[in-house]
Amino acid sequence: MTGEEVAFVGLGAMGFGMATNLVEHGFNVTGFDVYAPNLERFVAGGGKSSTTPREAVESAKYVVFMVATAAQILSAMFDEETGAIWAIPRDTVVLLCSTGPPEHAPNVRRLLDGKYQRGDVQLVDAPVSGGTIRAAAGTLTILASGPEMAVRNARPVLDAMAGEKLYLIPGGLGAGTKVKMVHQVLAGVHITMTSEAMGFAAALGLNTSQAFEHLRKSEADSWMFDNRVPHMLERDPTVYSALNIITKDIGIVTADGRAEKFPLFMASATEQVLAAGVRAAIGLEDDSNLIKVYLPKSPDLVFQQGSAAVTTTADDPKLKLVAQAMAAVHLAAAAEAMMLGAKVGLDTKQLQEIIATAAGTSWMFVDRTPQMVSGKWQTRRTVEDVISELSEAIEAASRMKYPLHLAGTALQLFHLAAWRGLGSESDVAICRVWDGADGPVFPRES
Amino acid sequence: MTGEEVAFVGLGAMGFGMATNLVEHGFNVTGFDVYAPNLERFVAGGGKSSTTPREAVESAKYVVFMVATAAQILSAMFDEETGAIWAIPRDTVVLLCSTGPPEHAPNVRRLLDGKYQRGDVQLVDAPVSGGTIRAAAGTLTILASGPEMAVRNARPVLDAMAGEKLYLIPGGLGAGTKVKMVHQVLAGVHITMTSEAMGFAAALGLNTSQAFEHLRKSEADSWMFDNRVPHMLERDPTVYSALNIITKDIGIVTADGRAEKFPLFMASATEQVLAAGVRAAIGLEDDSNLIKVYLPKSPDLVFQQGSAAVTTTADDPKLKLVAQAMAAVHLAAAAEAMMLGAKVGLDTKQLQEIIATAAGTSWMFVDRTPQMVSGKWQTRRTVEDVISELSEAIEAASRMKYPLHLAGTALQLFHLAAWRGLGSESDVAICRVWDGADGPVFPRES
Repeated sequence: MTGEEVAFVGLGAMGFGMATNLVEHGFNVTGFDVYAPNLERFVAGGGKSSTTPREAVESAKYVVFMVATAAQILSAMFDEETGAIWAIPRDTVVLLCSTGPPEHAPNVRRLLDGKYQRGDVQLVDAPVSGGTIRAAAGTLTILASGPEMAVRNARPVLDAMAGEKLYLIPGGLGAGTKVKMVHQVLAGVHITMTSEAMGFAAALGLNTSQAFEHLRKSEADSWMFDNRVPHMLERDPTVYSALNIITKDIGIVTADGRAEKFPLFMASATEQVLAAGVRAAIGLEDDSNLIKVYLPKSPDLVFQQGSAAVTTTADDPKLKLVAQAMAAVHLAAAAEAMMLGAKVGLDTKQLQEIIATAAGTSWMFVDRTPQMVSGKWQTRRTVEDVISELSEAIEAASRMKYPLHLAGTALQLFHLAAWRGLGSESDVAICRVWDGADGPVFPRES
Repeated sequence: MTGEEVAFVGLGAMGFGMATNLVEHGFNVTGFDVYAPNLERFVAGGGKSSTTPREAVESAKYVVFMVATAAQILSAMFDEETGAIWAIPRDTVVLLCSTGPPEHAPNVRRLLDGKYQRGDVQLVDAPVSGGTIRAAAGTLTILASGPEMAVRNARPVLDAMAGEKLYLIPGGLGAGTKVKMVHQVLAGVHITMTSEAMGFAAALGLNTSQAFEHLRKSEADSWMFDNRVPHMLERDPTVYSALNIITKDIGIVTADGRAEKFPLFMASATEQVLAAGVRAAIGLEDDSNLIKVYLPKSPDLVFQQGSAAVTTTADDPKLKLVAQAMAAVHLAAAAEAMMLGAKVGLDTKQLQEIIATAAGTSWMFVDRTPQMVSGKWQTRRTVEDVISELSEAIEAASRMKYPLHLAGTALQLFHLAAWRGLGSESDVAICRVWDGADGPVFPRES
């Protein structure tokens, strides 16, 4: 219906799906990618091609950037020869959809207003989440922020890419990226915990297919767990999301933690495991291959045990160990993420609602974070209970010399909470570990 | 001179040196080991052999247990057929020199007094430290505890094994093991940090031989670093201390942390890296091979860069990154260890003095822990300073995707201290992270 001109820069796994979806919505899309086969594939899918970002934007009403890093956006936007800036029409709406650091979109705004004197270009911070399938279906989660008019003018494209999953984030340009950043704490921890947990299940001798089916129906579940484990069980060679991507995203999180001098134990432990994965040369593989860091001598064990001649029932005590480790890690990560969100000034209630239905969600997140935000602690399981359960899991792993990087870190956080006198409180009290000199972030209501 | 009868159970790397040293001191030593070649070697060295612990102790005035685990002591002592208990003479002095959990010696005491009705057997808890060379030289660090009379009666053997490095630990049977356990927090962190740091130096492209020489003369130094790095630089295949040993010891530490519900972030992160090493099948190798966990695709890089055609000066900015990471990790570990010592009821001043001259020492430990114990914080470097320095190191590692498991954990602890309002305090304030519900462990004096 629209026929409006869109320039789309970055036709990788996600970008290709997003751009093609815009074509299907009737936009007239000119694509650009540094990798020629991506461009050819896009033309075959009904798009037009261009040789530079500068050429791509010539008649664009909207420009979407969906490249890998903030540095690539700067290059595509401002390169002295090929940059979009030299051809971008007046009042064009630019959507920054890549995940960068929170200061990225404001930086681009400053460059447009200052050095390039293009105050007319309308900029929207619009990081996305959801994977390739939802990218192609136009049902991505998009976290849009920026000046009201710019966001309103971007709506036709945002609506086509996100459908009902479009969130408008208050707080100005960059606020959407802050939400994405907090979301990525959970995405990173959950992706890593998926490997930690499934490797643990395999090392414990469980039937991993059956273990997966039970775990995903329990409070150990996370969206990433549901999504990634089938890749392991089927030994699927497809790269749905390369390990390098989540490694980059978690790097943004910990860099922000350093900038804010804010403790991020779970994100930091996750970053080190991911770095170990990149060092083990699996950066370009699907992130479900992180299992190779946990089982370096038997990387196929999760696959092999998927058809093991053992039955793993829902009440198998060994399965319980895995579930306990997962639930505790997810709870600690949920607390850490919400505390970071509060620290960077986000509306924590909206943050909670967005993450609860996005790829960073988990059973624990959905159940516990509303209690954190409201201060109404209702869960009866106590910090001490979590310590007992998690200790059981860690003792079993210790006997096998199986590394539980994340569960080990989580246990110390629960220990710290107990040591500070919160042992007999609801496990939601784990959020109190992040209490600063100014007192609790979320005061308790009884 | 003595001619007194000693039974020595456990003639492994350490035990062989200790037993042979007792022979040289004039004791009449009957050895036992499950591994025949060890026994033959001992006979060649002037000892006598036996076929069971029961036979070994038949005429013993002293019995020394230097096996690998507490479970092995229980078996050697109480096995229904071959146990020493069935032949041990009246009033014999039994020295438990293996490193077990703190409750081990009291457990053995209860079994002797109760089930076996051998209240006459005199038991001394006497864990040792110092390595094979000092074992053979009779200059081990020994941490003896137990009833005054038992310790006094054990002195001839203790003195022969330790010389001036014999420490009498107040607090009854098991207190010596508690000191050893706290010591092993530092031993474990420092061994692991040695690999983390040297792998980092190699990945940064430094000349590792020169880097080592500079680092050991700086505040980054630790006893373990001095001792282990030459194994890497010379690619020495000798197993001085197997990775499995420190893995077992750190497992005792974290088990105690779980029993006490006490947060041990550094020890826990260390345990996971060590477990990753065992999973990578290097458990039986010298613990300096932990470098393989950090550089899985280039395990010889530290060796290769030892003769690299680059000069690394003492003020090389990259070397500074390594030094900063080491110093911060050693400081965090020193605080964690001292806090654990206080938690288990040790005399922290004596603990500080013992560790300062033992294998668990570091430049940071020697300099900072007296300030922690006295509460007189004199170091001018602040928590914020450490955060800045450590952040530089972590950012460099993050760019290279080099995992800094321990430095990453340490940074979060310093962040937590700053977040709690201690940012502009002396870096000694890191000990305040372990403040419990009852307030500071070591109150500050100004």
